[in-house]
Amino acid sequence: MRSVQERAVKTREAILRAASEVFDEFGFSGASVSKIMKRAGVTQGGMYFHFASKEALAHAVMVEQGNGLELPPGEDGLQRLVDITLYLAGELQTNPALRAGVRLAIEQGEFGVQDDAPYQYWVQEFAGQLRAARDKGELQPEVDVDDLAWMLVSSYSGTQLLSQISTGRADLHQRVITLWRYLLPGVAVPDVKARITFAEQRDGTAA
Amino acid sequence: MRSVQERAVKTREAILRAASEVFDEFGFSGASVSKIMKRAGVTQGGMYFHFASKEALAHAVMVEQGNGLELPPGEDGLQRLVDITLYLAGELQTNPALRAGVRLAIEQGEFGVQDDAPYQYWVQEFAGQLRAARDKGELQPEVDVDDLAWMLVSSYSGTQLLSQISTGRADLHQRVITLWRYLLPGVAVPDVKARITFAEQRDGTAA
Repeated sequence: MRSVQERAVKTREAILRAASEVFDEFGFSGASVSKIMKRAGVTQGGMYFHFASKEALAHAVMVEQGNGLELPPGEDGLQRLVDITLYLAGELQTNPALRAGVRLAIEQGEFGVQDDAPYQYWVQEFAGQLRAARDKGELQPEVDVDDLAWMLVSSYSGTQLLSQISTGRADLHQRVITLWRYLLPGVAVPDVKARITFAEQRDGTAA
Repeated sequence: MRSVQERAVKTREAILRAASEVFDEFGFSGASVSKIMKRAGVTQGGMYFHFASKEALAHAVMVEQGNGLELPPGEDGLQRLVDITLYLAGELQTNPALRAGVRLAIEQGEFGVQDDAPYQYWVQEFAGQLRAARDKGELQPEVDVDDLAWMLVSSYSGTQLLSQISTGRADLHQRVITLWRYLLPGVAVPDVKARITFAEQRDGTAA
């Protein structure tokens, strides 16, 4: 019994990994279930046991885009939130599961879906960091944590979209840092704002 | 000769108007050239004289999304830029040409296009207002006008996308105001920041 369940979990993971790669490369329209089956090395029975359709596969890739990410360590708060946004910029350049999930979430209108779950996942994650920042006295008194989390996820989504269209995401780190530079005065109290650093500065790889 | 040219211009406009309505409603995949021809009341010859394919139509709708808009009047500068962003929020709720152009620009990956021209159009427009704001002494000294214009267009694009997915753009005005509230401290000098108003406040229709 146990090993059957384990095998089912492994099959599902293999299918999702293959689906991520195919959706990342070809988008929803260009992807086909048979291409995904072939890349995952599963039979038609194995596929349909887990996913009834290409739509169901795309939905799973969209809402599970954050699974398997190893967010950077550190004490919760504003610095960690900045670190997470820069970490995600790197993952958006290289991680097929995140790239495919984000691509499908952006282009979902083209295949008839309207689902903000993939965005709400990040709104909750960001709001958690902002609540820790609030508890530590890092935020300006006017900040509404939930409003700001929604605004950050929206702005970040647009930033990665334009960076992708303009430069294939080559300038994404720099664009995320620019976003923070304009936002921090309205978000952080002055001494916290002065202490915030950007990963590229700390490890010396960028300005 | 003149009337032939005039008729051609009118036909092109009728096609683009019909294409905007159809792309706005059905997206790229769901739109068909025959549906657009029928709605525009043009023959196949008339259509192909102007547009060789559905891709060419979509490209024109994408890059001409700002044509025909009557941006709010006022002296160029930060207040006018705020007014323009709130005006666009209203147009995104009702204007098929803008809605279709924005939808296609967002979902362009799904039909194999990678073109930042529709975004650059707004980056130039916003940068023009920011240069006027700079000349009037409205901006913080650290502001880089071109960087900030790109950042505003990115953040605005993400804001309208999430508002569309979450609420069909019902909360878009409020979300644009939230974006400005967090950005203004990093953008405007304090006395200008204190003077900026949001259209909804001025005409009393929203908080």
